[in-house]
Amino acid sequence: MIKQSAYGTEPWRLVENRLDLDLLAQSESIFALSNGHIGLRGNLDEGDPHGLPGSYLNSFYEVRPLPYAEAGYGFPDDGQNVINVTNGKIIRLLVDDEPFDIRYGTLHSHERVLDMKAGTLTRTVEWSSPAGARVKVTSVRLVSLTQRAIAAVNYTVEAVGAKLRLVLQSEIVANEELPQRSKDPRVAAVMENPLVSEEHQCTNDTGPARAILVHKTRASGLRIAAAMSHVITGPEKMATRIESYPDLGRLTIAAEVGAGEKVQLVKFIGYGWSSQRSKPAVVDQVSAALAAAHLTGWDGLLAEQRAYLDAFWEGADVEVEGDTEIQQAVRFGLFHILQAGARAEHRPIAAKGLTGTGYDGHTFWDTETFVLPVLMYTHPSAAADALRWRHLTLNEARRHAAQLGLDGAAFAWRTIHGEECSGYWPAGTAAFHINADIADAVARYLDATEDAEFEREVALELLVETARLWRSLGQHNAAGNFRIEGVTGPDEYSAVKDNNIYTNLMAQRNLACAADLAVKLPDEAGRLGVTTEEVASWRDAAAAMYIPFDDRLGVHQQHEGFTDYARWDFKNTGQDHYPLLLHFPYFQLYRKQVVKQADLVLAMYMRPDAFTPEQKARNFAYYEPLTVRDSSLSACTQGVMAAEVGQLDLAHDYLAEAALMDLRDVEHNTSDGVHMASLAGSWMALVAGFGGMRAGAGLLAFSPRLPGGIARICFRLRYRGRKLRITIGPDQALYELLDGKALEIIHHGKEFKLTKKSVELDIPPATAGPRPEQPPGRMPYNRSS
Amino acid sequence: MIKQSAYGTEPWRLVENRLDLDLLAQSESIFALSNGHIGLRGNLDEGDPHGLPGSYLNSFYEVRPLPYAEAGYGFPDDGQNVINVTNGKIIRLLVDDEPFDIRYGTLHSHERVLDMKAGTLTRTVEWSSPAGARVKVTSVRLVSLTQRAIAAVNYTVEAVGAKLRLVLQSEIVANEELPQRSKDPRVAAVMENPLVSEEHQCTNDTGPARAILVHKTRASGLRIAAAMSHVITGPEKMATRIESYPDLGRLTIAAEVGAGEKVQLVKFIGYGWSSQRSKPAVVDQVSAALAAAHLTGWDGLLAEQRAYLDAFWEGADVEVEGDTEIQQAVRFGLFHILQAGARAEHRPIAAKGLTGTGYDGHTFWDTETFVLPVLMYTHPSAAADALRWRHLTLNEARRHAAQLGLDGAAFAWRTIHGEECSGYWPAGTAAFHINADIADAVARYLDATEDAEFEREVALELLVETARLWRSLGQHNAAGNFRIEGVTGPDEYSAVKDNNIYTNLMAQRNLACAADLAVKLPDEAGRLGVTTEEVASWRDAAAAMYIPFDDRLGVHQQHEGFTDYARWDFKNTGQDHYPLLLHFPYFQLYRKQVVKQADLVLAMYMRPDAFTPEQKARNFAYYEPLTVRDSSLSACTQGVMAAEVGQLDLAHDYLAEAALMDLRDVEHNTSDGVHMASLAGSWMALVAGFGGMRAGAGLLAFSPRLPGGIARICFRLRYRGRKLRITIGPDQALYELLDGKALEIIHHGKEFKLTKKSVELDIPPATAGPRPEQPPGRMPYNRSS
Repeated sequence: MIKQSAYGTEPWRLVENRLDLDLLAQSESIFALSNGHIGLRGNLDEGDPHGLPGSYLNSFYEVRPLPYAEAGYGFPDDGQNVINVTNGKIIRLLVDDEPFDIRYGTLHSHERVLDMKAGTLTRTVEWSSPAGARVKVTSVRLVSLTQRAIAAVNYTVEAVGAKLRLVLQSEIVANEELPQRSKDPRVAAVMENPLVSEEHQCTNDTGPARAILVHKTRASGLRIAAAMSHVITGPEKMATRIESYPDLGRLTIAAEVGAGEKVQLVKFIGYGWSSQRSKPAVVDQVSAALAAAHLTGWDGLLAEQRAYLDAFWEGADVEVEGDTEIQQAVRFGLFHILQAGARAEHRPIAAKGLTGTGYDGHTFWDTETFVLPVLMYTHPSAAADALRWRHLTLNEARRHAAQLGLDGAAFAWRTIHGEECSGYWPAGTAAFHINADIADAVARYLDATEDAEFEREVALELLVETARLWRSLGQHNAAGNFRIEGVTGPDEYSAVKDNNIYTNLMAQRNLACAADLAVKLPDEAGRLGVTTEEVASWRDAAAAMYIPFDDRLGVHQQHEGFTDYARWDFKNTGQDHYPLLLHFPYFQLYRKQVVKQADLVLAMYMRPDAFTPEQKARNFAYYEPLTVRDSSLSACTQGVMAAEVGQLDLAHDYLAEAALMDLRDVEHNTSDGVHMASLAGSWMALVAGFGGMRAGAGLLAFSPRLPGGIARICFRLRYRGRKLRITIGPDQALYELLDGKALEIIHHGKEFKLTKKSVELDIPPATAGPRPEQPPGRMPYNRSS
Repeated sequence: MIKQSAYGTEPWRLVENRLDLDLLAQSESIFALSNGHIGLRGNLDEGDPHGLPGSYLNSFYEVRPLPYAEAGYGFPDDGQNVINVTNGKIIRLLVDDEPFDIRYGTLHSHERVLDMKAGTLTRTVEWSSPAGARVKVTSVRLVSLTQRAIAAVNYTVEAVGAKLRLVLQSEIVANEELPQRSKDPRVAAVMENPLVSEEHQCTNDTGPARAILVHKTRASGLRIAAAMSHVITGPEKMATRIESYPDLGRLTIAAEVGAGEKVQLVKFIGYGWSSQRSKPAVVDQVSAALAAAHLTGWDGLLAEQRAYLDAFWEGADVEVEGDTEIQQAVRFGLFHILQAGARAEHRPIAAKGLTGTGYDGHTFWDTETFVLPVLMYTHPSAAADALRWRHLTLNEARRHAAQLGLDGAAFAWRTIHGEECSGYWPAGTAAFHINADIADAVARYLDATEDAEFEREVALELLVETARLWRSLGQHNAAGNFRIEGVTGPDEYSAVKDNNIYTNLMAQRNLACAADLAVKLPDEAGRLGVTTEEVASWRDAAAAMYIPFDDRLGVHQQHEGFTDYARWDFKNTGQDHYPLLLHFPYFQLYRKQVVKQADLVLAMYMRPDAFTPEQKARNFAYYEPLTVRDSSLSACTQGVMAAEVGQLDLAHDYLAEAALMDLRDVEHNTSDGVHMASLAGSWMALVAGFGGMRAGAGLLAFSPRLPGGIARICFRLRYRGRKLRITIGPDQALYELLDGKALEIIHHGKEFKLTKKSVELDIPPATAGPRPEQPPGRMPYNRSS
């Protein structure tokens, strides 16, 4: 685990003062820069040492055959893996005779700063070679939020104390050698030499020294062009040379630098890729992007970056008083979510964004369930773009449904391009809830934005096709209940069960929303073949939906029969046996009362209307001792529901676990990329937890209440074209409408109208039972100690 | 499908008069010879053409890594595959200038005869080369039932009509090239060049021309020696030469043969293998086996073979009057079962015996459930040997149980050597019923033989360790029911379900039998650590075992909740979509009322005491329209229960389907080997079906009753050291004690004592409701039409 102070506690900056080589891979994920189109891991400029070299382009992947010991009908033949593309961020340095490599010589000082207002990663190093030649290296790196195809590095070397001979090599490198990764099935399979060279060029005849490499992937047939171009400032005695090879472009700058003198290299990196466009078209596209970046210049890129972020934070910032770690972490989370989604533009947002190869670069349900709600209320166009990507995969989803013998659309459990890539169907295809999660995000987005164009173009079809899926997936039994059998809910320690409560409740909402929108848009619905009979059948199914409840215990069942199972033997399960899935067979996990991640508890957050307050408290108390949190998707949800049932300190603990997932490497796999959903979950635990925000079904409600350890929270929201600011103290909540028309809001169950005049309301005291226990050893961080 | 008359209808012989190259692979399985130690497919002597060349040794296998798209804890790393060993049966022939190959020239006549009394495969061919040279070739092949390591061929070529130059090449060949097999997951993966040469020798200095090849498998490290030795009779002008190479031993005989003259070659083939013994030891073992075979000579081997079979048939034969196809088929089935088990001797009996590579040569539960009961009552020592093999794998089974977090022993679902080799756990490891099936076979064998040594040495430990498994696998719920959750029963179209009725009933019997035997053998039980408390806990669990029943429908549930599921949409399932598992995802199969193979219906046969006659009839009628018989294990069981509930014509149809499974290639995979369990099932459908035999729990009972299409059945049984013959006519049954002490027998529910004096009893008329329907298109063969 990363120790507490690795990145300091500054509210807007992560500051690393010491380079720990054992944690290099984790820091590369944390310091990754992205705009949702390009992602660059925080690798050191000189390439070595590294944890995992990584440069990614959204949806640029290779296919690989999926092997099975015993195959079955419909098992996907091929997987999709994000691949490490041409690396444009390498700048090597020779100091007199010695390569600049911090593992040799003396590292006098090291600092890396991720500035969440500037959108830059700055590195400052003072180093002496083994021979005693001393340099100060400063590099500032950005991936432009305003110029989608562009990344840039401003690299400065200063000779400290004596005249030096310096050689800089600025490179673009394809097919980098990658380290062999762990055997953990969750870690992406490594793809070796995925890129086949198509062309390489370099020139410094006219304008800045440029090189370009064009490659194609072997199996998926995608074409990529990566180019670099430079602005060089340095001493008089300086020579440059540019070369290109199939897998390498290299600009070499040799200079004699006097003491205190510098060489400065501004490097612009352009990326373009296409599955269809010709080689000249892709080459021209990248060259054009570089030309535009040169025109803007380094300072211009910096200014644009800051302006973009200022606008974002204005509608998205969350202030936390009393817990500086959480303050930093929640901004860190928002920053990475913005990076993942800002310029994805009809491409998916992966579970790890573009920060690493974890989960093969796939997108799952947690994008819709955890990440998009944050974007909906902070940067709604990015949420719309991500849902438009889902909409673009409707054909694959329809084919998948047909293959499964179902109507409508069955979206892939894990994918990059839309095809199902899950190699273990009980925890893949069977997790149909992803379809209701997508539908929920669609409905929630409509509620948050009233985006009429999206409603017509995207929302209706997504809701209709998923409703059709549910209608064909479930069936009425003799008693008239509508039942959905043999599916897997969010909790992956149960699989292929009957009537998973989360699935049934989300399907119910899906069916109802589809019916409502089809009635609202009769012409468009008619074009999709929707009839009044079909709408009626959705409403009937929703009304008859079976919700499993154990009368004896007075709690809901995560799935039918769950509470009849034996409880997991927590007492005899050592802490070194977590996560359980790496130490126990699925067979045992599936047949016991043990919960990997919030499932029923998530249902209580997503469908607050389906439970009474008493049921929520009783369910929460029952499931809490069964939930081991072997998934990063759990703590935030448990935090939200802990807050709702009045367990405020526990909610604070869960908030911390979610918020610090990557900054503390809680699950020991931040090296593969940061956990977007958990980072989003820190926002959720604050806003939906301590803010008590519930939205998505027509009314915006808050039930704010703070734990002892937090003095004040202030968060900003965008909602239906408005900007809101809500400030929560121990006893009062202040509601402000910063922009837009008046609206109705519910505060602790009472509706009021918020106009330009801010409203301060009292917070009623919480009532709660005893703090529930977690399984032995599985309690979250204790923030109060 | 193989057309009706392919093998004639002679009662003791299969006769093939026409060579259909499209069915060559099927005929190779059907004409396979084996003694349970060596298995030789019915390949043509000259090797080409072939469907699948095959020579196998019981338990001689190679290991291969099992791949997973997404691995999980406890998934087996390695599989085991039976491999095609050194082929000793090849004899090539050159006729003047032309190789004898029936695809060229003219095939004047072809006959192959499998003689089930002689235990030989005889082939008689007359053929002319394209140049018109005509020969008559006769080969008689046997795999000795009395000399375990020996196979032999008596090969004669006669020059017909003119003098000819003949060259015979008698070979042993390792690493034969094998055809690429289908993509069906059930077909064994082909292993290329599995054998690494260690040594080769040949000599004709002293005695008969001999050659020997010694190889080792690459990964499993097993050593095999295969040798041949010859007796040659021929014309004066004849020359021989013997050679050996790493993968080839070859005896060449060149002869000038006058019209009507012959060359006769008797070839003895010896096999030996070991995982431990040194190379010289294995070489000596095989050489010694050949020396013994020479001493016995060809005629001696033939005589021994016939004597062995005479003794077998005396206690095993089943006569069927009125259905000649069934008469032939039931003897064919018994013959193959004897071949699979006769000399296995502490080695397993595989699903395909040693007749092909289907299912990778693995052994499953059906050996204990279908095959061993036949052997118990016909050749009991072979049944004991097979169970002793299971006993030898107890350590692997204990390790498997421990890995799963369970007590006792969990036997491998599929294996050659004892380790679990299942690559899809929902239809592998989760099918825990195999442990109760083994226990049932143990108890049934004890009941059938009163074998006290086996009881002490083998039975107690197997029963105790499996009882321990069940006790730890199940749990009591709050209502006090003992429940076994998340397991898979015999029907593989349901998987990982709660309280599968077959599993629960068989576990109940397992627990009770273990308790009884532990009490009977207190000292031995004490040495296994059994306490009175443990015994009591087994009895408690057995008594509290939960048996799912649907009160509304008045039928038992195959598993808890089964009758709440939607019925499979049989109407819209085309006949070309069977077997369903190749056309529909497991996901859909598992959540519908559709049954691959008898499950509850098998439970009614195996646990007749657990159901009332009314329940049996009602259950049978309910499940019959749901059962598609996509498994070869189903028809026989349905036949038995159809007979019990009075559906005698339907039972006859099922009997035919089971009996003709391979002779008609019902499932289109006889090419991979014959279906031992279905062949055993034909005996079961006759003896337990129309004989109504029930045994295994202390009393021997019959409820004989014939369908209209069968005039008389007569079967012989060995039971507790006795020999019995039961002859069933339309109205009476005749019970005869051929050998041994008097015993109590139940006839249609009434007990009588059978002494040396035979007893003839009346058969009460059957009462039955309307004939139940099968799913559309899935009715069995109609014998009455």
